Amino acid sequence: MATESGETVVGNKKVVLKNYIAAGAPKESDFELETAGTVGLKIPEGSTAVIVKNLYLSCDPFMRSRMTKHARPGYVPDYVPGEAITGYGVCEVVNSNHPDFKKGDYLWGMTGWEEYSLITSTDSLIKIKDTDVPLSYYAGLLGLAGFTAYIGFYEICKPKKGDYVFISSASGAVGQLVGQFAKLKGCYVVGSVGSDEKVALLKEKFDFDDAFNYKKESNLHAALKRCFPKGIDVYFENVGGKMLDAVLLKMRDHGRIAACGMISQYNLEKPEGVHNLILVVVKRIRMEGFLIHEHYDLYPKFLETIIPLIKDGSIKYVEDVAHGLENAPSALIGIFSGRNVGKQLVQVSRE
Amino acid sequence: MATESGETVVGNKKVVLKNYIAAGAPKESDFELETAGTVGLKIPEGSTAVIVKNLYLSCDPFMRSRMTKHARPGYVPDYVPGEAITGYGVCEVVNSNHPDFKKGDYLWGMTGWEEYSLITSTDSLIKIKDTDVPLSYYAGLLGLAGFTAYIGFYEICKPKKGDYVFISSASGAVGQLVGQFAKLKGCYVVGSVGSDEKVALLKEKFDFDDAFNYKKESNLHAALKRCFPKGIDVYFENVGGKMLDAVLLKMRDHGRIAACGMISQYNLEKPEGVHNLILVVVKRIRMEGFLIHEHYDLYPKFLETIIPLIKDGSIKYVEDVAHGLENAPSALIGIFSGRNVGKQLVQVSRE
Repeated sequence: MATESGETVVGNKKVVLKNYIAAGAPKESDFELETAGTVGLKIPEGSTAVIVKNLYLSCDPFMRSRMTKHARPGYVPDYVPGEAITGYGVCEVVNSNHPDFKKGDYLWGMTGWEEYSLITSTDSLIKIKDTDVPLSYYAGLLGLAGFTAYIGFYEICKPKKGDYVFISSASGAVGQLVGQFAKLKGCYVVGSVGSDEKVALLKEKFDFDDAFNYKKESNLHAALKRCFPKGIDVYFENVGGKMLDAVLLKMRDHGRIAACGMISQYNLEKPEGVHNLILVVVKRIRMEGFLIHEHYDLYPKFLETIIPLIKDGSIKYVEDVAHGLENAPSALIGIFSGRNVGKQLVQVSRE
Repeated sequence: MATESGETVVGNKKVVLKNYIAAGAPKESDFELETAGTVGLKIPEGSTAVIVKNLYLSCDPFMRSRMTKHARPGYVPDYVPGEAITGYGVCEVVNSNHPDFKKGDYLWGMTGWEEYSLITSTDSLIKIKDTDVPLSYYAGLLGLAGFTAYIGFYEICKPKKGDYVFISSASGAVGQLVGQFAKLKGCYVVGSVGSDEKVALLKEKFDFDDAFNYKKESNLHAALKRCFPKGIDVYFENVGGKMLDAVLLKMRDHGRIAACGMISQYNLEKPEGVHNLILVVVKRIRMEGFLIHEHYDLYPKFLETIIPLIKDGSIKYVEDVAHGLENAPSALIGIFSGRNVGKQLVQVSRE
């Protein structure tokens, strides 16, 4: 379809947040699939924007906080009800005024939950150079999640061969990779997950030394004691709350905690209290948060390291792909109850 | 008095713990002053022990945990009821089989709460070389407390000029020195204390930019907001619990928390929960515990740095000295209610 000005206009289904959510888990009914919208494929004059066709969208825990209205701005802005939500994804350039991106390029970075997006803030976009691996990997293993695992494990945990490593939410996109990095480093690796299926996945597919289903453990401390008779050197923290409290009891002297996320807390009105922080003093523990935006200079090194490991089969990866924007809200809310197995994606369009 | 073997035996008053304490603040009645004991001044054959006359004893928060029986050994052993309790102090060598220490030397390190101590574990003892400063300083400013401030501030907080620095329990031996180091570094420094008298001390004596009496603040968060409109870069943590929770809300991106102690929690049956740890992720905070034993290699550098600053008046120091072992239990338990003003010591004997 072309307008009088000659601009091509296409239909553009999008996922919008209906209203801000207070506490509690997001529900499918908090979102709406708008099917009536259109988008023009012409770039505004004088802008360095790109128009992209979205291929894969990534469902990430940090998106939860954007669904709630905050009094003060955080490190990512709150969503705007009625507009397409945004997140990390893989897309193909349809039209570009940006000097680094041309039509047909594949990019990954922040995009919209819609068929086509006009992206004016292009800082987060990275051109995909190696397309010998599945493009969807750049919405997870080679994108936000994988790079998070890399920075968190190597730069924050400072692992040593023989370290005892514990990973919570270990079958997710970040956790599965941290575990594999730790095995490659010569560490002893245990993960916690929310189902027996995921326990099997960690042990059989990702070669973890041990794993447990936290939903079946009446006492987290006992589970950790069983898995780590000598204690924990490195904790890759994805869940927070009670798990963090139990881990602190098992940490060894000079233990390191990479605070990557605390997904168990995101839907609570008041986060759980953590009672064992005195052990940070007693055991000389270092707990440290990080955001990968501040480490982008290491991204090329990350790709150089990991792509050969993917190609030779040393690094394995499990994706859970929902198909079509109509299934996107369900995929997104599923990660908060742990319904996904592996990295949760939404495929928007065929490549 | 001499025994038949020719050994000199002297009276030796000592402070003993009567029984292990469960939760709650220690009370004077938990201790006993034993006046009937004696000690021989001869070193056991083949040992490298020293016998010392104790001059000054230091009252330190970490001593609280030693008054409770623990199932597993911690980084310091539990006290043994009926025996003299131990702690850091300054003493004079009366007799020595140790190659590095001779009669008349002044030492600081771990000693007993008694008039004379036979010290067989001499690892913690350090010979005092510079006696141009008061000897009592080695039980605080130039000993455990001062070195803790030095390591915690410079090595753990990694301060930068212009940083906003907050110190809890700021008039104590550690806090007062951290504040002065921070001022020398060009930081903006605020301390919290438990009385108006101590607020005045911080502002008038130690040149803090601001200070507040936490007992008079109905809302810690509001107090911190008032003192730090731009947030906190460095938190020197001495108290834990609610204060830590409130500080997390005011920390700036890349803030650093030196976890030195959590005195507000030591007497509780169950420590308070800390609810805002998600901010460690969001703000990329580093929280780190430390123990000075692991940094003793820097002790000479610490003395080289601080002694000239003491002599030229750049560093000030306030001591609260109780006189005589009979007043020692009261002095020790006073630090848990904040009754002391400045570094709490017990003078056992005249120099």
